[in-house]
Amino acid sequence: MGNNSTALPLVLLAEQFARLPGIGMKSAQRLAYHVMSMTDKEAQDFADAIIRAHSTIKSCAECQNLTEDELCPVCADELRDHSTICVVETPKDISAFERTNEYKGVYHVLHGLISPLDGITPDKIRLKELLARIQKGGVEEVIMATNPTVEGEATAMYISKLLKPLGVKVTRLAFGLPVGGTLEYADEVTLFKALENRNEI
Amino acid sequence: MGNNSTALPLVLLAEQFARLPGIGMKSAQRLAYHVMSMTDKEAQDFADAIIRAHSTIKSCAECQNLTEDELCPVCADELRDHSTICVVETPKDISAFERTNEYKGVYHVLHGLISPLDGITPDKIRLKELLARIQKGGVEEVIMATNPTVEGEATAMYISKLLKPLGVKVTRLAFGLPVGGTLEYADEVTLFKALENRNEI
Repeated sequence: MGNNSTALPLVLLAEQFARLPGIGMKSAQRLAYHVMSMTDKEAQDFADAIIRAHSTIKSCAECQNLTEDELCPVCADELRDHSTICVVETPKDISAFERTNEYKGVYHVLHGLISPLDGITPDKIRLKELLARIQKGGVEEVIMATNPTVEGEATAMYISKLLKPLGVKVTRLAFGLPVGGTLEYADEVTLFKALENRNEI
Repeated sequence: MGNNSTALPLVLLAEQFARLPGIGMKSAQRLAYHVMSMTDKEAQDFADAIIRAHSTIKSCAECQNLTEDELCPVCADELRDHSTICVVETPKDISAFERTNEYKGVYHVLHGLISPLDGITPDKIRLKELLARIQKGGVEEVIMATNPTVEGEATAMYISKLLKPLGVKVTRLAFGLPVGGTLEYADEVTLFKALENRNEI
């Protein structure tokens, strides 16, 4: 890359690809060359998709999920249970829940986790929007569905302490063995949690 | 993807990413969400880089490498040895040779390999352009630097048989390259050894 045998726009395009998460310089170069092999229309469609997605998508006024409209399809759906809010870190997490076809409540996207060491204080995530929703009334349960990481746990704890005085039930996703996994490969913490939270059958 | 919790432009963008080589639907979704987190300028720059690279880059009139100008920097360079042509499959391969800093000749990009089973007959690659360069005179050696795969070998053999009657020396990269591998991932030393030990075929 960057040597004089490669045309400049190609180097610039590869650099753009290399900025994307999980794409190294070698892959970025391969992707840039792939763009060269596209038809004019394909390249134009690709560029348009970037601009269109970026310019038309905004945050849902209610749950902060990404949407084209004022309200996301979940929040706009009268059949969903609006008294249960599942709090997640990113919009991606909502897709995961929707794929289960089991969750009928609504969501709230924090767009981050509290992490003071990285400078992410509670005011940097969409927490006041969550508080506003609860203060409006009608919410009975808030399910903390942040990842089981240090930041995810800390954020769940912080928010639960904040919400409990408001008289709302705060729950946390269960920890245990992944379905289809084997005991042999479960880590100690997961196994301990699975044992601790065992249920009568 | 595609469920009603995800905004349509985001799904379309993810589909665009998923069309790129080596990017699955899961990665494509992650990349699409990443574009959402870009600033307006970053997204615009990304889209512009695609269009600019695609619209301004054409084939070098001499060696068929991708370039912005009539001639690529290598062909336009008077200090390069224009009597030695290194024949490669793709423009990427040139970058690999240039990184060795050892090769002083020029190149010819075939933009493909002969593969009758895939419908790629000799007229589908930039072979007549190579013949025209040799018929113009002044070329002493043609180094076949196609990948050490079945198609690469077959193409090297086909071209060597075509060129020998024209009184030009045809050589092949030495098998310092791991058989079954690709030029793109060869390290500089291996590539230099392969260049140094090239044999007449």
